[in-house]
Amino acid sequence: MIIEKIAESRFNDSVFESKVFGKNFTDHMLVATYKDGKWSEPKIMPYGPLEFSPAAMAFHYGQAIFEGMKAYKNENEEVFIFRPDKNFERFNLSAKRLSMPEVPAEIFMDGIKTIVDLDRQWVPKNYGTSLYLRPTMFATEEAVSARSSHEYMFVILMAYAPSYYEKPLSVKIADFYSRSAQGGVGFAKCAGNYAASFFPTEEAQKEGYDQVIWTDSIEHKYIEEAGTMNVWVRIGDKLLTAPTSERILNGVTRDSLLNLAKDMGLDVEVRPIEVAEMYEAYKNGQLKEVFGCGTAVVVNSYNAIGFGEERAEIGILPDEESYAVRLKTALRNIQYGLIEDPYGWRIKIEESVTA
Amino acid sequence: MIIEKIAESRFNDSVFESKVFGKNFTDHMLVATYKDGKWSEPKIMPYGPLEFSPAAMAFHYGQAIFEGMKAYKNENEEVFIFRPDKNFERFNLSAKRLSMPEVPAEIFMDGIKTIVDLDRQWVPKNYGTSLYLRPTMFATEEAVSARSSHEYMFVILMAYAPSYYEKPLSVKIADFYSRSAQGGVGFAKCAGNYAASFFPTEEAQKEGYDQVIWTDSIEHKYIEEAGTMNVWVRIGDKLLTAPTSERILNGVTRDSLLNLAKDMGLDVEVRPIEVAEMYEAYKNGQLKEVFGCGTAVVVNSYNAIGFGEERAEIGILPDEESYAVRLKTALRNIQYGLIEDPYGWRIKIEESVTA
Repeated sequence: MIIEKIAESRFNDSVFESKVFGKNFTDHMLVATYKDGKWSEPKIMPYGPLEFSPAAMAFHYGQAIFEGMKAYKNENEEVFIFRPDKNFERFNLSAKRLSMPEVPAEIFMDGIKTIVDLDRQWVPKNYGTSLYLRPTMFATEEAVSARSSHEYMFVILMAYAPSYYEKPLSVKIADFYSRSAQGGVGFAKCAGNYAASFFPTEEAQKEGYDQVIWTDSIEHKYIEEAGTMNVWVRIGDKLLTAPTSERILNGVTRDSLLNLAKDMGLDVEVRPIEVAEMYEAYKNGQLKEVFGCGTAVVVNSYNAIGFGEERAEIGILPDEESYAVRLKTALRNIQYGLIEDPYGWRIKIEESVTA
Repeated sequence: MIIEKIAESRFNDSVFESKVFGKNFTDHMLVATYKDGKWSEPKIMPYGPLEFSPAAMAFHYGQAIFEGMKAYKNENEEVFIFRPDKNFERFNLSAKRLSMPEVPAEIFMDGIKTIVDLDRQWVPKNYGTSLYLRPTMFATEEAVSARSSHEYMFVILMAYAPSYYEKPLSVKIADFYSRSAQGGVGFAKCAGNYAASFFPTEEAQKEGYDQVIWTDSIEHKYIEEAGTMNVWVRIGDKLLTAPTSERILNGVTRDSLLNLAKDMGLDVEVRPIEVAEMYEAYKNGQLKEVFGCGTAVVVNSYNAIGFGEERAEIGILPDEESYAVRLKTALRNIQYGLIEDPYGWRIKIEESVTA
């Protein structure tokens, strides 16, 4: 790995006062390029623009995938990342579906560890804040021809993450637009899935909602996932989440909460959730909590659900009664190194790497 | 419009000997940028790389749309473009669905005319060849946050187009993968639709086919479109094509052929086409022709159709009996300025613009 350090760090503490997610980038980025069937040696270099042709295939045919991860710091200045193996695995699953080359562990995993170590002063210490890590790969071949690119770039970017979506959100259940098709790319973390979701989300925002809960594209009968989150529904004391599928992203936070919920002894069930079932529970007063989870948001409660024209207001439970709060606290305490991690999820970033 | 001409043209006639589509770019490109809610004055400048942040939102969230158009030259050195108003209209329809700003006619239409005029020596004169025009818009804001970008770039690139797909193609009818969902972005010419199609296409190629004919994502029962083409099916002497929909691109070539077919007196019908109906016609010897159309390929006959495990070979009709050939010839003769254009489709590029 080539390391070209920045001449003078741009870091200062005021970065941590920002309220903006994903705009304050750290000193360094990692770059590796793929050409003639092989990856270059990865290079860590000062963050900044690079030269690309406007004919770079990512701009035309959208071969672009990414992952979202976070680095956390505890009071002892120790830095951790969380289940990077899951992101690495999903990244290469996305790569396959998008007809892109796999990125080897020496680049993805070693890259993450090295660059987080190098920019460790950028990892904030305040509980709830973190450094957001963004491994991305996109097509760079200069060609306007509808086929897979022969050249790619892999980058790791890092940006300050304040606490995301602190307030409860209101979500509209999709009854016209869809996020993904059977036989499509819904399970892949690819750029096109997001681009397709913005307009329907903005339409929902015009109706007073923050986000959309996607449903199956055939009948809009089953809950799938929210914008950047997997969805949890608590009916009575039963906690439900939809199974992952070819249309639903296999969220790392989702999987972690599932483990935590089982180990807490909650009554949790993974099965398709009908919109009608949620609505009926709401009418019966049994819809106690609905929340989303994802790396960026961690866990976010919903205080209103749009069923067609009807806006169902859902009271937010006191912390001690809320599964969302219990799960979020347990997850964060592991992520920030405050409690034991019986799962082996937390990976400490050693300081030796770039000493 | 700002025009910064290249110091010394890179043009030489050997470009026209290339067999490669979309790799030989002309001297100039047009660039306009969108920021703070407005478009910059467009600038025509030497074609080449520009600086972009690896955090440019197109690389992460895939807001990217394009059009494909062509410029043609006749024996008198006159240069024409074809129905640019249709591409302009569709471009802004795509922009809306992808939550991107509209591009005004002063940039898109005047831009096309000016840059084609400027690089007119790059338009080849051989019948069947042309200069491919690629207007594109993509998100450039530097942010890793899942929402619409606030900044965009619009570019027009131009590259030599040899005759595309001269041979008949074999196509597999999709029975597992899908191109687009009901309520999705299938009608938009957006980057993500292409990225999603490459892997299924390559899987079909492993089975010996060139491309995929997409079917509806619900039952794989109805024909939708092929990779970069709308599809036509001739059963007996009836010519069928599927209606455009929210899942199917409203092709300019498709619309033109529809007009030509009607005016030739062909028995043409726009209606959903069942895979089963095609298969039955094949079994009965009534499946006379299947072909695709699009700006890049013009018209391309299929000589084999994959119905599940069965490869149905379709004889290619002699030119004088083929609807595909009749339609292709009529269309090209208009495009190349060889016959009258009663439709007003052909637009001559005046030489005055940049004189």
